[in-house]
Amino acid sequence: MSSDDLYPVTRLAAVREATARAGIGALLLTPGPDLRYVTGYEAHVLERLTCLVVPAEGDAFLMVPRLELAAAEHSPASRLGVEFVPWQETDDPYAQVARRLGPVAKVGLADRMWAMTSLRFRDALPGTEQVLAGSVLRDLRMRKSPAEAAALREAGAAIDAVHAQVPGFLRAGRTEREVGRDIADAIIAAGHETVDFVIVGSGPNGASPHHELSDRVIQAGEPVVVDIGGRMPSGYCSDSTRVYSVGEPPAEFAAYYDVLRRAQEAACAAVRPGATCESIDAAAREVIAEAGHGERFFHRTGHGIGLETHEDPYIVAGNAEPLAPGFAFSVEPGIYLAGAHGARIEDIVICTETGGERVNHRPRELVVV
Amino acid sequence: MSSDDLYPVTRLAAVREATARAGIGALLLTPGPDLRYVTGYEAHVLERLTCLVVPAEGDAFLMVPRLELAAAEHSPASRLGVEFVPWQETDDPYAQVARRLGPVAKVGLADRMWAMTSLRFRDALPGTEQVLAGSVLRDLRMRKSPAEAAALREAGAAIDAVHAQVPGFLRAGRTEREVGRDIADAIIAAGHETVDFVIVGSGPNGASPHHELSDRVIQAGEPVVVDIGGRMPSGYCSDSTRVYSVGEPPAEFAAYYDVLRRAQEAACAAVRPGATCESIDAAAREVIAEAGHGERFFHRTGHGIGLETHEDPYIVAGNAEPLAPGFAFSVEPGIYLAGAHGARIEDIVICTETGGERVNHRPRELVVV
Repeated sequence: MSSDDLYPVTRLAAVREATARAGIGALLLTPGPDLRYVTGYEAHVLERLTCLVVPAEGDAFLMVPRLELAAAEHSPASRLGVEFVPWQETDDPYAQVARRLGPVAKVGLADRMWAMTSLRFRDALPGTEQVLAGSVLRDLRMRKSPAEAAALREAGAAIDAVHAQVPGFLRAGRTEREVGRDIADAIIAAGHETVDFVIVGSGPNGASPHHELSDRVIQAGEPVVVDIGGRMPSGYCSDSTRVYSVGEPPAEFAAYYDVLRRAQEAACAAVRPGATCESIDAAAREVIAEAGHGERFFHRTGHGIGLETHEDPYIVAGNAEPLAPGFAFSVEPGIYLAGAHGARIEDIVICTETGGERVNHRPRELVVV
Repeated sequence: MSSDDLYPVTRLAAVREATARAGIGALLLTPGPDLRYVTGYEAHVLERLTCLVVPAEGDAFLMVPRLELAAAEHSPASRLGVEFVPWQETDDPYAQVARRLGPVAKVGLADRMWAMTSLRFRDALPGTEQVLAGSVLRDLRMRKSPAEAAALREAGAAIDAVHAQVPGFLRAGRTEREVGRDIADAIIAAGHETVDFVIVGSGPNGASPHHELSDRVIQAGEPVVVDIGGRMPSGYCSDSTRVYSVGEPPAEFAAYYDVLRRAQEAACAAVRPGATCESIDAAAREVIAEAGHGERFFHRTGHGIGLETHEDPYIVAGNAEPLAPGFAFSVEPGIYLAGAHGARIEDIVICTETGGERVNHRPRELVVV
């Protein structure tokens, strides 16, 4: 996919309009997903200030360290026709932004801006209220364009290709870390640019949802939770969980795995425009609670995904936001038996005009290897 | 190296005392190098709040998402004897921190805390001034302990082992990206946990200091700048630059490379306790300026290194901070001829009681391959 599809040059104008509508004087977008969304520029997060300044009125400009100038000029940001303002090592780029911007009542900071940067802006712009750029960008970022949906499908296919290889990596006697290393290699080989996380939770480790890798040796008869993801060259992320069992699992496990399977299906089936985020969470939770496992499902059902693995919308109780076409998020209920084993099934789902489209297609039945 | 050496449990008390001395009511340490320095805990940076709260008076506690609890309990943070406070998905952990902390005039935020987190703390603690935790931690973090110096030596040896292999990767006809892929593999094979950056700047790309990799085919007779680094399992970073030439380089290049070589030596030789950071920068800059290349060296001479690749102290004009034993930083002057080629030589240097100790030992002469 070309930058022009994924990061259209028209986006900057849409962002400026949304900024004005929100009553914000300017967005200050330092490197990270917000900057990449607006420009396509994947800049390093550094102590030296790189910042796209998007005033609600007037022209945007990119503050850029002198020695990043060539990289910026070769990046997709160069398509936008904004002025690049290089600063020298002994300049104060915060003061330069303040001078160029003039007085503003409110600025929107990139959601991931470091405190070392946001506090410099606070001091350089005294009396200016700081809010999150996300208050402007989230509505835009949540509604994936057709090109963004295609990028998520591409990421989904890549991580599916990794899951297809997992049975070949898993066997009794290997450690989680050994299996994890094979998976990480496969994530890159499948076309990802980075490995973002590799969770291999065998036996009791499967009961800790964010356990990653350990030197624990996988035993025969153990379920193994494999939750993996990475970032594609497009910038878009993959994230999918499947459960494998090295030989036949305990009967107790098989019973609740079946409940989990139905819960994940119910939540995916509930996806459609207008359904609230919390209703998707409830759809999964009800099935699990009815089967008496409510206490064993102690995390939200999902998170939005796009340029970040975790972004809006969150599929969680209390979030009454209605889904709209283009929203993309994980559906990943889990059931965990502390000290014994656990399970989680996860697909990325994109809300369509009429329902939900999953981008992950590996079998969701327990895979006995 | 064990956590007890690199991340001694006594550090928390030292941090608390420094916090009280600085007149700060509490540090709020979210995942990142500040949290790792104090606890050894390498937590993921996520939208869910993990935060070590270090009050100047009273007991520290770790706010931790319920589903990260097991990971936190298995981390080095569990050695510290601080209370772990798990929060559920529908709780407001910011309000919980505010309640437990009570009224405080000033809090210190982890330098890399995201704006989405710092603004939540601002709202949860109205009237509390936010400053950087770095104002307390920088003096501690800059003075590397013997265990930290050993970790930097280990990282230096690992990246030296990669540079030793670079001549085997470089030849005319290969692209920068192909060479970069070999280098990235070698960085991991040499014991790093992550590849942080791989710069292969051939010919004119060598004149852009932060150029990374491109599909440019390396030509015979071209100098190539190779600036590489990663993070070791200890948490400590490597960073070293050498210049190679694929066949004999242009005479003009060889002439300024010799100047650069002398400049880098002069700066390394100037390292000793009491010398200011800017004096180290000046030592390199003078040699280059005297030879008429002053305009071609347009970045600072170096940056501190430790748990971050770039941290205090910065070796830059205007920084009058005197060096002290344990300070560790890069010495990396460069000379760049736009459109033609460039060169940079970089070692990590640790200030000792009497001078400077380099942790990188690969030959600094131009390596003709």
